[in-house]
Amino acid sequence: MVTGLRPWPWSLVALAFCAACLGSAKGGKLLAIPMDGSHWLSMREIVQEISLRGHETVVLAPELSMHIREGPFYTLKTFPVTFSKDQFHNMQENPYLLFETAPVLKRFFDMAGGMKDFADMQFGFCSDLVSNKELMKSLEQAHYDAVLTDPVVPCGAIMAQYLSVPAVYFFRGIPCDFTAEGTRCPDPSSYIPRMFTENTDHMTFLQRVKNILYTLPQSVACHVFFSSFARLASELLQRDMSIVDVLSHGSVWLMRSDFLLDYPRPIMPNTIFIGGMNCANTKQLSQEFEAYVNASGEHGVVVFSLGSMVSEIPMTKAMEIAEALGTIPQTVLWRYTGKPPSNLAKNTKLVKWLPQNDLLAHPKTRAFITHAGSHGTYEGLCNGVPMVLMPLFGDQMDNAKRMESRGAGVILNVLEMTSDDLSKALKTVINDKSYKENIMRLSALHKDRPISPLDLAVFWVEFVMRNKGAPHLRAAAHDLNWIQYHSLDVIAFLLAIVLTVVLIAVKCLKFCFQKCFGKKEKAKKATKSKSH
Amino acid sequence: MVTGLRPWPWSLVALAFCAACLGSAKGGKLLAIPMDGSHWLSMREIVQEISLRGHETVVLAPELSMHIREGPFYTLKTFPVTFSKDQFHNMQENPYLLFETAPVLKRFFDMAGGMKDFADMQFGFCSDLVSNKELMKSLEQAHYDAVLTDPVVPCGAIMAQYLSVPAVYFFRGIPCDFTAEGTRCPDPSSYIPRMFTENTDHMTFLQRVKNILYTLPQSVACHVFFSSFARLASELLQRDMSIVDVLSHGSVWLMRSDFLLDYPRPIMPNTIFIGGMNCANTKQLSQEFEAYVNASGEHGVVVFSLGSMVSEIPMTKAMEIAEALGTIPQTVLWRYTGKPPSNLAKNTKLVKWLPQNDLLAHPKTRAFITHAGSHGTYEGLCNGVPMVLMPLFGDQMDNAKRMESRGAGVILNVLEMTSDDLSKALKTVINDKSYKENIMRLSALHKDRPISPLDLAVFWVEFVMRNKGAPHLRAAAHDLNWIQYHSLDVIAFLLAIVLTVVLIAVKCLKFCFQKCFGKKEKAKKATKSKSH
Repeated sequence: MVTGLRPWPWSLVALAFCAACLGSAKGGKLLAIPMDGSHWLSMREIVQEISLRGHETVVLAPELSMHIREGPFYTLKTFPVTFSKDQFHNMQENPYLLFETAPVLKRFFDMAGGMKDFADMQFGFCSDLVSNKELMKSLEQAHYDAVLTDPVVPCGAIMAQYLSVPAVYFFRGIPCDFTAEGTRCPDPSSYIPRMFTENTDHMTFLQRVKNILYTLPQSVACHVFFSSFARLASELLQRDMSIVDVLSHGSVWLMRSDFLLDYPRPIMPNTIFIGGMNCANTKQLSQEFEAYVNASGEHGVVVFSLGSMVSEIPMTKAMEIAEALGTIPQTVLWRYTGKPPSNLAKNTKLVKWLPQNDLLAHPKTRAFITHAGSHGTYEGLCNGVPMVLMPLFGDQMDNAKRMESRGAGVILNVLEMTSDDLSKALKTVINDKSYKENIMRLSALHKDRPISPLDLAVFWVEFVMRNKGAPHLRAAAHDLNWIQYHSLDVIAFLLAIVLTVVLIAVKCLKFCFQKCFGKKEKAKKATKSKSH
Repeated sequence: MVTGLRPWPWSLVALAFCAACLGSAKGGKLLAIPMDGSHWLSMREIVQEISLRGHETVVLAPELSMHIREGPFYTLKTFPVTFSKDQFHNMQENPYLLFETAPVLKRFFDMAGGMKDFADMQFGFCSDLVSNKELMKSLEQAHYDAVLTDPVVPCGAIMAQYLSVPAVYFFRGIPCDFTAEGTRCPDPSSYIPRMFTENTDHMTFLQRVKNILYTLPQSVACHVFFSSFARLASELLQRDMSIVDVLSHGSVWLMRSDFLLDYPRPIMPNTIFIGGMNCANTKQLSQEFEAYVNASGEHGVVVFSLGSMVSEIPMTKAMEIAEALGTIPQTVLWRYTGKPPSNLAKNTKLVKWLPQNDLLAHPKTRAFITHAGSHGTYEGLCNGVPMVLMPLFGDQMDNAKRMESRGAGVILNVLEMTSDDLSKALKTVINDKSYKENIMRLSALHKDRPISPLDLAVFWVEFVMRNKGAPHLRAAAHDLNWIQYHSLDVIAFLLAIVLTVVLIAVKCLKFCFQKCFGKKEKAKKATKSKSH
């Protein structure tokens, strides 16, 4: 008899197809402590699903936020912060920095300064939260079943430990091998490219040298970024905590990655790969966009967005881009809120917002110009659209490199590219069939899985809620120190034994040798001296 | 709106619930090259499901076999072998060896001799297969989409490479870290117990020493077992092949394990855990067994089987066991084909065969006396039945240790135990509530998964069939040699640079020092000599 899924109690499959069972998963309490920006936009999908499954869901966020707003599916709890509103808004509105053509060193320090400001702000928010006695008390009294948080800002991870509640991490990656350290996952640098190196998994000797060398500056940067959080955790939890100790608390790590975008490497059993969960729900296009697409004729459309952080760019760059866009026969839908460039061609439509995933899912979409943020890259990948990649910061360069290395896109340096470069790149990904074939192959493999990434994410959040964590998936490596983990003590012990045995053997041999031949030698000498 | 699984193309879920889609998975051709014994009994489940999904399924086996027979769901192709029939049957009927109370060293060499005979027989079968030109030609011409095989005897893995067909491995474990080497998975000995050590994942210093020391003899044993296969592969494929090269061909590794039985450790993306798939299909008990169970009253039943290999034991041991079984109020159902012990108590029923999984699933079953084979252990675990574990050989000691370390069973040494020991052990697992609580907790966790292990196994076999392998899940580590993998060349290069820089710096300093102070020194000396 075939077949179907067997009735595993509590399984998501059972839940999904058996309305009557829904009650059995109801009644849990989830506290979500998200990271702002696009990170929240995809976590919101999980929060919504969890809420729809009958759990009480509370989202905890500072009162200053880019995207975290009230929603119909969860209760938003905001807390007051001491950070200045003006400064917060200034920090959001500085995309020009990314397009600055200053010397490399100045740009590096500007970027680092920006990162430092961001880290300070996040730390300030976290301090404001933990010193808000009333709020902390109410959180303690709420007895949540799990905390869902993005560990790239470890405030949620600290809160989970403080509340003695298991944590589910939802993230794209944490710099400095903290993902590997936090889960105790081996992470050989010989074929696992380090963040920001732009390496692939097949490296030349010099790329492997670069891969190892990138560890040190990243470690320094992370020390700057995370040390204040480690201090805060130590004070709050009243024991000495490193940031790895804080992160190790994670019961399940939901990683927004898969092995079509990232490269295959060792993983730990409590790391679950849910890359592409953001492109699961495709909706019908609105009339406005349907009209644009229909009017595009046989050539179809090109979708162009540099992500939620960047909606306008310096005019000279915008004009260069506009010129390039005018050279292709496709209709270009460009998300752009700035002053329209004067040379905008007829085929280019500026829009303040566009339904990116829905447009990419349309069969008439021929190419996607993107900054290679992880969400956008997955939306291009899921929907099989070749990409022109213009990475700006963070992991975008790595995402872009991964797509390029698989023959699914062309990378352009947004600062150095000319109008001609962009025009050529667009024509290449649209007209060279190999790009479409490669991205379609990747897309088919990405979708060929036994359970959708969003359902998998929801399953594991509920798993942690109902089982109070997932200790059976936690490696015993967490209980070993560095020397024990690498068996250095055992190796030293065995070496000591071998050395002792060798030494004793040598001594014995020497002794025997002396006993046997020493006498003869003496006898010889004696004979010789007599004969003299 | 909630909630269900999203429509991922080809997904098993879609297939399972959408009869119309079934056609899309039809038409593949699978070649199964199983390992005999209980290994085949669980692989058969997958073969059956694959066949029911509309694929052509051929099972290839030597004409001498314990359990591989014609079946309604697949075509059995047998091939003639040169191995003697009598010797084959003699090898199956030697369970007494396991109960021999000879000195340890004699038992070790007897066992090793048995293993060697088994290896020679398997190698003989494989040689007979590859030298059967007609059969080999027909296999080549059949153009299979995938080979499903148990790599513990690597004949199927060799055949897959010869036929240039992707391989799916279905296995419980391969000694000598071959699983880790074949997938290039890190395998620290500090917390991952080596086979046959009886260690858990939490080891004392001396246990860690033992864990490392076990590597060498295992490596020697594996060399003996596998070297002939490596030679055969090299000849057949006309290139130099080690056994790890042969195994590395595996596209997907379906491992009959999970993290309730085994301990959490690093895994590679192409290793899929399907432990417990053998206990998915529970059937109604036959009248005979239903009657036994119903007649057992409030005390319920105890199920006792030492697996498909051992159905009778020496009379003295059988009498000891019978005496112990008589001391408990439960009805004991004992699978035993030998002469009944004269002291058999009324509560003990001897049967030639029993529906083990179905009996264990019955709520009246109180305990399970088992040899701790992986199938039986999972059936006890799935159904939440505390166990008395009497491991006999192979991985059974390790399986038993895993259950004991989790408080779900008591281990007895079948050679040394007295009647009293067995009686006490049974009373402990039945009356001490902690055993039942622990096994029920493990059972609930084992079943709490998004998709059943059998469906997962079937999904991945079909995945490999339709995608011609799974190269996107294959780590780039396969393309690195040992030195590159461990970055020893990079470390040497960086050390060389550091040393060169230090040397040059020292030389420069020395030179400057001489220039600066050398003159003064000379001047001093000159002054001194003048003053003299």
